[in-house]
Amino acid sequence: MPCMRLKEIGEFELIERMARIFQQDGAAVANAAAAFSRLVVGIGDDAAVWRESSSQYTMSTTDAMVEGVHFTCATTDWYDLGWKAMASNISDIAGMGGIPRYALVVLGASGELEVTNVLDLCRGMADLAGRFGAAIIGGDTISSPLTMVSITVLGEAVRGQDRGGAPPILRRSAACPGDWIAVTGRLGSSAGGLELLLKGSGRVDAQFAPLAEAHRRPVPRVEEGQLLVSAGVRCGMDLSDGLIGDLTRICRASGVSALVEVDKLPVDPLLREAFGERAVELALSGGEDYELLCAAPAEILSEAQLLLHRAGVDLTVVGTIVDRDLERAPVMLCEADGQLRMPTRKGWEHFTSNGDSARD
Amino acid sequence: MPCMRLKEIGEFELIERMARIFQQDGAAVANAAAAFSRLVVGIGDDAAVWRESSSQYTMSTTDAMVEGVHFTCATTDWYDLGWKAMASNISDIAGMGGIPRYALVVLGASGELEVTNVLDLCRGMADLAGRFGAAIIGGDTISSPLTMVSITVLGEAVRGQDRGGAPPILRRSAACPGDWIAVTGRLGSSAGGLELLLKGSGRVDAQFAPLAEAHRRPVPRVEEGQLLVSAGVRCGMDLSDGLIGDLTRICRASGVSALVEVDKLPVDPLLREAFGERAVELALSGGEDYELLCAAPAEILSEAQLLLHRAGVDLTVVGTIVDRDLERAPVMLCEADGQLRMPTRKGWEHFTSNGDSARD
Repeated sequence: MPCMRLKEIGEFELIERMARIFQQDGAAVANAAAAFSRLVVGIGDDAAVWRESSSQYTMSTTDAMVEGVHFTCATTDWYDLGWKAMASNISDIAGMGGIPRYALVVLGASGELEVTNVLDLCRGMADLAGRFGAAIIGGDTISSPLTMVSITVLGEAVRGQDRGGAPPILRRSAACPGDWIAVTGRLGSSAGGLELLLKGSGRVDAQFAPLAEAHRRPVPRVEEGQLLVSAGVRCGMDLSDGLIGDLTRICRASGVSALVEVDKLPVDPLLREAFGERAVELALSGGEDYELLCAAPAEILSEAQLLLHRAGVDLTVVGTIVDRDLERAPVMLCEADGQLRMPTRKGWEHFTSNGDSARD
Repeated sequence: MPCMRLKEIGEFELIERMARIFQQDGAAVANAAAAFSRLVVGIGDDAAVWRESSSQYTMSTTDAMVEGVHFTCATTDWYDLGWKAMASNISDIAGMGGIPRYALVVLGASGELEVTNVLDLCRGMADLAGRFGAAIIGGDTISSPLTMVSITVLGEAVRGQDRGGAPPILRRSAACPGDWIAVTGRLGSSAGGLELLLKGSGRVDAQFAPLAEAHRRPVPRVEEGQLLVSAGVRCGMDLSDGLIGDLTRICRASGVSALVEVDKLPVDPLLREAFGERAVELALSGGEDYELLCAAPAEILSEAQLLLHRAGVDLTVVGTIVDRDLERAPVMLCEADGQLRMPTRKGWEHFTSNGDSARD
């Protein structure tokens, strides 16, 4: 049998095969039956969720960054790196509508790394975690030729919000045809900020500083996720890999398709000023927005819009969930003139290069 | 100010400085006051522990392995690697006297890695986790030039075992002068097995296979940790870095010193056969035993010995906790003839090379 390499099967296929071993294979899984019986959400969502008691749910997520892939030591601002590493994990808790409580940090580094860099990294992590009331309580330090950071965040679901037996969380698999699709804040700013930072070798015109800031120090939508849950929303996730890529995940998990109305996308006027027509492309495919993406019936979304508006945050309806259409890509774009268009990039997938089409 | 590098301060000093930022620094920590108030054990033990409710404690540990430091892809048996990565984490839960429940796995790999290797790795992890009823419920896959595995395990303390307000866990900081020191099973077998494997390029005489097995597929002392707690033991940890190194950690955390009676060390007769005099050295300093080390008053240890004996496991008294003696190393060895000797290796410390003395 010829040997098959990871790049040939890609991340989604790999995760599916791993999940089969972890969740379905033989004796090991049978032994863990009690633990699995309390599991509400397993592999394939922003975080795993399990029931502690009738009204209490714990959630946990983990995420890693490696030098040379996710950052470069030469140009890294260590404080920002720590901030972003923690933000991406806490954003996964936000994407489940949860409350972050505790974090564990693994740091891998060579003995040559400067101590001040590591401590700046820690300050960035601590400041972001503290902003949301999460305590960093443990971890591991290991020797590693490449610098790496792996973070685990534990959180809990908001209590007393069970509706008709549905746990008070946002999950990817709960979208239904007819649901409206909405996003918090504005899209594409982080990707735009990154482009400007790269073009200016780390410097950005003062005018466009907010875009660079969106890239360097994203602020996860923690309270907003909880408000979505309170309004009754049950389908959602955080936007880390771009709207099209992440909405594709919701479609796959829910067995539905989605129509996105391109002219409704919330785009920062600064992004339009800096990128013109390309702003829409960044809003559709740019990663690391750390906004929330959700789907719910119109009346629930209206309620959610009201709650978020009171908290000073926009929740913008950008499309509709429709029946699965196997003939088309799971996510279709609807232009202002009513023309349907297939997206050309589907967001980041590890191991393989990005495909040209979101067809699955 | 001259720049200081990690290798100059070593792992213990680094962790102390990181802990200061995570646990004491300013606004971030103040914001997380509610989370910290429920924390029972923070940075510096096998796992972090916090109170969920009056009788319920959750614990969490995380640990990573990187290619080139902890294993080499060329000679790795991937199933064994997965087994050991999971074993070292579950052993940390065992070292707290806890019950492992859930695990999250981060896998970093290049696209060139063979799929079958990754799946074998997953099978090793799943089999070890399943053996103890723990379910692997999530994680992350990332692209990385070096293969790396980072695992987080969540567990809980045994219930209904609070004694005089002391939570039902084993911790490093609870040793008192006069306590007896004890270890489960036998020491040094894993280190001996590794030497034999290296010498034989992966092959070992059938006669010594149990030593190789101890190295390749260690079995954490999960039930044993819970039995120690049930007997009333409150000080303990798992042995991953060698008896002297780990006992030094207990001494530091508890502000005490320790006397180890060398001729009482439980050593596998096979290890003596293979290594002669050196067997004792391996028992004192060899890593990856994944046995348990504990300290408790004599009557409690006797009770623990009885419970473990019924479970078919030896708990051997190997020394005594004494008042801290700042003139000497925290751990002193007492030879059969009553001579005191200072240990010459203190176990593994990351970033720096091992010191020649356990003096702290």
